[in-house]
Amino acid sequence: MPLCVVGSVALDSVETPTETRENILGGSAVYFSYAASFFTSVRLTAAVGEDWPPEHTELLESRGIDTSGLQVVEGGKTFRWRGKYKKDMNDRETLDLQLNVLADFEPVLPEEYRQCSFLFLANGSPIHQLKTLDQCECAKLVVADTMDFYIRSERERLMTLLKRIDGLVLNDGEARLLTDDENLVRAGRAIMKMGPKFVVIKKGEHGAIFFGEDETYVLPAFPTPDVVDPTGAGDSFAGGMMGYLAEAAAKKGTVPVCRDGPEGAAHKWGSFPSSLDPKTLKEALAYGTLTASFTVEGFSLDRLQEIDRNQIERRMDEYRKMLSF
Amino acid sequence: MPLCVVGSVALDSVETPTETRENILGGSAVYFSYAASFFTSVRLTAAVGEDWPPEHTELLESRGIDTSGLQVVEGGKTFRWRGKYKKDMNDRETLDLQLNVLADFEPVLPEEYRQCSFLFLANGSPIHQLKTLDQCECAKLVVADTMDFYIRSERERLMTLLKRIDGLVLNDGEARLLTDDENLVRAGRAIMKMGPKFVVIKKGEHGAIFFGEDETYVLPAFPTPDVVDPTGAGDSFAGGMMGYLAEAAAKKGTVPVCRDGPEGAAHKWGSFPSSLDPKTLKEALAYGTLTASFTVEGFSLDRLQEIDRNQIERRMDEYRKMLSF
Repeated sequence: MPLCVVGSVALDSVETPTETRENILGGSAVYFSYAASFFTSVRLTAAVGEDWPPEHTELLESRGIDTSGLQVVEGGKTFRWRGKYKKDMNDRETLDLQLNVLADFEPVLPEEYRQCSFLFLANGSPIHQLKTLDQCECAKLVVADTMDFYIRSERERLMTLLKRIDGLVLNDGEARLLTDDENLVRAGRAIMKMGPKFVVIKKGEHGAIFFGEDETYVLPAFPTPDVVDPTGAGDSFAGGMMGYLAEAAAKKGTVPVCRDGPEGAAHKWGSFPSSLDPKTLKEALAYGTLTASFTVEGFSLDRLQEIDRNQIERRMDEYRKMLSF
Repeated sequence: MPLCVVGSVALDSVETPTETRENILGGSAVYFSYAASFFTSVRLTAAVGEDWPPEHTELLESRGIDTSGLQVVEGGKTFRWRGKYKKDMNDRETLDLQLNVLADFEPVLPEEYRQCSFLFLANGSPIHQLKTLDQCECAKLVVADTMDFYIRSERERLMTLLKRIDGLVLNDGEARLLTDDENLVRAGRAIMKMGPKFVVIKKGEHGAIFFGEDETYVLPAFPTPDVVDPTGAGDSFAGGMMGYLAEAAAKKGTVPVCRDGPEGAAHKWGSFPSSLDPKTLKEALAYGTLTASFTVEGFSLDRLQEIDRNQIERRMDEYRKMLSF
């Protein structure tokens, strides 16, 4: 069950209270893809510059991630981000941001990607998110992320996007900004009214709140003492979540079939696969939570590279036990 | 199974972004007692001044709370606190604090209270907490709270206290301050090494982390859209938790018997009732969480006065459902 992601690929420089790493592999599409690859096959679309180290591509490919959508822009430089975490490892400050090739990046999905049933639009301009959606005729489950910059500067287009996606994943500050409501339960419900069939508000070390048509619930983060670098936790969460959803649909044999024809893509958005029942969705949230809990235990993909699916399952057993009484 | 609490009784003035209330019933012992009264009988020890409205005492007594330990100080004024909540209702600022009778309050437990098997030492000076403990010869389960002021100014006495109690309940900022560690999982484990058999770190709207000898887990707060006034949530949490523990011990017929004699009280601290198995403790944490979720839905005890045990149980059903997948 292929899962497509369109997002950023970056060279990050990360400063934590105890350590600094320069030019390490990062970006929303990278974290998402790697996290999802524990569950399903992934197809990545993003842009990099000529400075892009080929070993990063090899690493992704070694996980079965299809990188044929990774465009190397001639004469371009890869997107770079430098951030510094405060003492509590929750708040961070962006010290430098060089958009480079991202400035003019118009996502173009390779022909074979357009059959993807599951699509994740990592945070980016709603214009590009909408254009990507238009290329993806078969997407049956579309989830998007967004961020404060676009909530402020492109609210109208974001509203258009929200009517065309199934799920929105965003963090607590973004949810408050989008709704002008400080209470996250009310904020989530208000976002539901903007269009999506479900909303997930990520709260970092405090877990996530899920809002569906019939239920609202909170799942806590897995309590890890080894928080090394929180970068990419949110995208890993989304990757684990959507990866599991794609896997579950494949297992249940409810792979949505792409119906080309006069109906057009627009009719298909939101035709939520019936396999994605509330129980599967909750499991997916839990898998997202646990995948992210590994990501933060190392810089870049360091910790994820050390684990396999078995370790995620073992942590899942602990997590289930933790929440049952 | 009587549960004793020693703490503050206050007249609070609370400013929220939308509403202000003057001189309403508050204080750690009040919130704790009322919350615990849904589960067990409670005996309160605190001091008030001559300005204390007798109807507040009547309200507590109407819940079966024994107020014979409520000392009215002649010529004294009741402790007053004025606080203002910020927009997100998490952070608050103390605008005014008048200790009044609390300044010289030396808790003296009435004779019949000294048989209490369960004792909660609400946040206060470790000197007074230790003196109270010395009076309570039969306490089998002693839980204490503390706060930043005492962590800074009376650390040594606090360390003595920590060796004599079974459980410590404190908030995230206090745990960080006590251990000088920003990671709450590491902080909780470090506090365990200071003496208590269990530690609960309260995270406000984000729930609580439990640390026991063999396990660490997180329970999220119940997601309520109706946060009116968070004052007293932490004490209500402790009240619901200890009230349930006392009830569970009574139901199981494992009421600890007070053994007077040459062993002295010191030997009995920490003789953790065997009825308090990990499962019961986790249930107690959940009841604390839910009792607190009602407290924040109104000013003072307003919301708690509207509910009965059935409503707590209904919310528990929802909570269990929310956490199972």
